[in-house]
Amino acid sequence: MLDRDAFSAWLNLNIIKIEKGNCTLSCTVNSQMLNGFDILHGGITYSLSDSALAFAANAYGYKCVSVETSISHLYPVKNNQALTITANEIHRGKSIGVYQVEILNDENQLISKFKGTVHISKDVW
Amino acid sequence: MLDRDAFSAWLNLNIIKIEKGNCTLSCTVNSQMLNGFDILHGGITYSLSDSALAFAANAYGYKCVSVETSISHLYPVKNNQALTITANEIHRGKSIGVYQVEILNDENQLISKFKGTVHISKDVW
Amino acid sequence: MLDRDAFSAWLNLNIIKIEKGNCTLSCTVNSQMLNGFDILHGGITYSLSDSALAFAANAYGYKCVSVETSISHLYPVKNNQALTITANEIHRGKSIGVYQVEILNDENQLISKFKGTVHISKDVW
Amino acid sequence: MLDRDAFSAWLNLNIIKIEKGNCTLSCTVNSQMLNGFDILHGGITYSLSDSALAFAANAYGYKCVSVETSISHLYPVKNNQALTITANEIHRGKSIGVYQVEILNDENQLISKFKGTVHISKDVW
Repeated sequence: MLDRDAFSAWLNLNIIKIEKGNCTLSCTVNSQMLNGFDILHGGITYSLSDSALAFAANAYGYKCVSVETSISHLYPVKNNQALTITANEIHRGKSIGVYQVEILNDENQLISKFKGTVHISKDVW
Repeated sequence: MLDRDAFSAWLNLNIIKIEKGNCTLSCTVNSQMLNGFDILHGGITYSLSDSALAFAANAYGYKCVSVETSISHLYPVKNNQALTITANEIHRGKSIGVYQVEILNDENQLISKFKGTVHISKDVW
Repeated sequence: MLDRDAFSAWLNLNIIKIEKGNCTLSCTVNSQMLNGFDILHGGITYSLSDSALAFAANAYGYKCVSVETSISHLYPVKNNQALTITANEIHRGKSIGVYQVEILNDENQLISKFKGTVHISKDVW
Repeated sequence: MLDRDAFSAWLNLNIIKIEKGNCTLSCTVNSQMLNGFDILHGGITYSLSDSALAFAANAYGYKCVSVETSISHLYPVKNNQALTITANEIHRGKSIGVYQVEILNDENQLISKFKGTVHISKDVW
């Protein structure tokens, strides 16, 4: 899935672990990812979380589409920091799955907390 | 602000209008923005919304930081589509502001609905 | 639906208008609805919004269940205030619907903004 | 705080533990709390979570007001079930705090997951 995902490739996402419902990724912040205050753009934090959600939810083989997600931004992130992104399954029913994603910086501070709801289709991807 | 915002520049964001509390932006989807299902990565939709939130909230001159945001993804977006991003102020108190952002595709379909809460500091940026 | 809904009855909800995807309700705050700061408990604001969501989404005749909802609390509400609750459909697909609900006080101030996602089943209720 | 909180009293909330940033509550569902589908109204689930958030965030002695909250409803809850509500602090900065609240039924199933953001004032309550 990552191979065909152009934007996740641009993010330089590395997969540490993927299994049904859970995954761990890593990423190093670069200067193209910063906003006008010279810290990591919130859109990157979200994108890392959303990719982790997609990998965890789709690991069962059935196509899952994100329908509603929210993210709390807790700490600013600086250039060159190494981030660890962890997605965990909170709930998986017949048609709805709920996942949380946490991102830690290299000092083990929680920089964001994400919750995402996916719709689970019957299509294999 | 956009000039110093490296990731918004990468997104090819164009400013159509900015005023205190509101802004309108445009953007054309390119192939680097797609995910593994060959549609626009949800992280881009979020990033466009988050930049619009930042421009609208910071237009008063006081530094605003996004604390909690949520987005509903309503329609898939294909490569080369032109998007219009509109941020509106719902509420602005002394220390908290709330904004909504809608993105339309070039057929005027609502592709996402975003709500964001910012903390308003007393620092001028 | 309201007739069988014990908690909506406790809330003294009045239906002003219900049609497919939209509804308008009214409610007057009483002293049992207040929290420890002597203002309306956020749970009541949410409950009014969630009932409005349910009435609007279920008005098509198919059973809809709320899966993920968020609410911004914008203004404190005092005892005896009359509230108007309005639900509008943002999106209705095959299996997912998205609605927003706004509550105004009797001075026409927006006191809360709610966004809710429902799963649409094929069961008639 | 609970003594002065009329709606939390109506909910029959029992405090099992409160400390700075965290709390555990219990509650038994009764027939007035049900919706038109004869299951627990989502507004009650939210209210229990919001009260737990308030108790945990205000336990430092400074007045905290909820600004943005979201809840995922994961399992239907039936009449007479005993619920355990647990709030945990995810982050507490100078002016913003973020908390999560989980509710378990008496079979230890997670029935809802709530995330709440509060604004921390300098006023002692």
